[in-house]
Amino acid sequence: MCELLAMSANVPTDIVFSFTGLAQRGGVTGPHVDGWGITFYEGKGSRTFKDACPSSESHIAKLIKSYPIKSEVVISHIRQANRGCVSLENTHPFTRELWGRYWTYAHNGQLTDYLPKFNVSRYQPVGDTDSELAFCWILEQVAQKFGGTKPEDMLAVFHYVATLAEQIRALGVFNMILSDGEHLMSYCSNNLCYITRRAPFGKAKLIDTDVVIDFDKETTAHDVVTVIATRPLTENEQWHVMQPGNRKLFRLGELLIDL
Amino acid sequence: MCELLAMSANVPTDIVFSFTGLAQRGGVTGPHVDGWGITFYEGKGSRTFKDACPSSESHIAKLIKSYPIKSEVVISHIRQANRGCVSLENTHPFTRELWGRYWTYAHNGQLTDYLPKFNVSRYQPVGDTDSELAFCWILEQVAQKFGGTKPEDMLAVFHYVATLAEQIRALGVFNMILSDGEHLMSYCSNNLCYITRRAPFGKAKLIDTDVVIDFDKETTAHDVVTVIATRPLTENEQWHVMQPGNRKLFRLGELLIDL
Repeated sequence: MCELLAMSANVPTDIVFSFTGLAQRGGVTGPHVDGWGITFYEGKGSRTFKDACPSSESHIAKLIKSYPIKSEVVISHIRQANRGCVSLENTHPFTRELWGRYWTYAHNGQLTDYLPKFNVSRYQPVGDTDSELAFCWILEQVAQKFGGTKPEDMLAVFHYVATLAEQIRALGVFNMILSDGEHLMSYCSNNLCYITRRAPFGKAKLIDTDVVIDFDKETTAHDVVTVIATRPLTENEQWHVMQPGNRKLFRLGELLIDL
Repeated sequence: MCELLAMSANVPTDIVFSFTGLAQRGGVTGPHVDGWGITFYEGKGSRTFKDACPSSESHIAKLIKSYPIKSEVVISHIRQANRGCVSLENTHPFTRELWGRYWTYAHNGQLTDYLPKFNVSRYQPVGDTDSELAFCWILEQVAQKFGGTKPEDMLAVFHYVATLAEQIRALGVFNMILSDGEHLMSYCSNNLCYITRRAPFGKAKLIDTDVVIDFDKETTAHDVVTVIATRPLTENEQWHVMQPGNRKLFRLGELLIDL
């Protein structure tokens, strides 16, 4: 189907190592050749790099693998198309603005009989994937429930999103990553895992290509970095496998709450 | 202040030549060192590359200058900050979705006493520039006037945007580029010019760096490409200088109408 990758960190951190592993799955060690994308939050700003070609061959992915962009929140996706053709507008992540924040989302899975459910107006999909439509529907529900101004209690917002994700899971496989640039939420339908790295840092070796990193040389003692992925990216670390229906909220690298 | 660059073409065309000239003005031949950005439409999809550092030094700008992305509509901007700090969220172009299309916008100029005018709710700025707030206000007015579905008559939409731009010009300098991915609109407050290239194509030489292109070798006889810029980018071609209050709508490389 697709693979997801996301990061939450308490200091601006680059994702070159993890993305290098993921990008291999876009045509070399995995079949996800129908596009890829990655969104970096830097403060309130964000920027997305995407391509409708395989990540293992993309000139732009090559830049991302060699040019460390420091970010607190990252969401990435490599695509194996099921609903919607191979095109730039169908390439994840998707971004929309709500309450003066960019919300970014990526989905792994496939939904059926979803059109009657997702009635949208304010947020409309540009492409023709089930994924983008579900994202528009989520944001529309959130905007309707909480109104035009960002609520103080953002936990309540993500609790509500979890109930929406639960409804969507009834329509198929729905592994989801969502962020407002501060919080990073994951919803597990069947395939998500995560790891939180903190001092003492060690070495890690990618599964998909022969790259080893010594995090001890790249970090300070105060750094906390969580990486979420569809499948573990490293072979010598213990990843936590999420269970179906599991929904987690991360902030500044830490697990904030099980929603 | 800032400089704008935009392109409308009837076939997917790369903007490497023009962007190479513009990027020089971001720190070498011009003082616009506070960030840069460029949005490419490819079909209904779009992707934006941006950086809060000078375009003449940016690794990502280097990629854009060397990697030809073929696009029908491009909007680019290099920034010299006046309102709003130097940051990614304040870097143009800005994008929002309306009617299932990505709308992209960039502004050159500076507004005063604009806060009472720009009352927004549905579209809210992420950064703190006058430019992004004006964009949110324009889209909010358009959404209110034309409702939740894309109207058949898009000319009426751009005619209305022209009246909004006219109101904004009363608050200061407002050179604007706006696109829904199909149409490219320019509004001239004091500094905009354009050129439409078609067969027979000739050679062009950039003003800002020693680069010459022979368009005859890069095009077919049917190509029509319009480039809009704050100041002419080439020294041996005749650019049309727009007059204050001038508003033009381009589509598929051709001037469609003076709004």
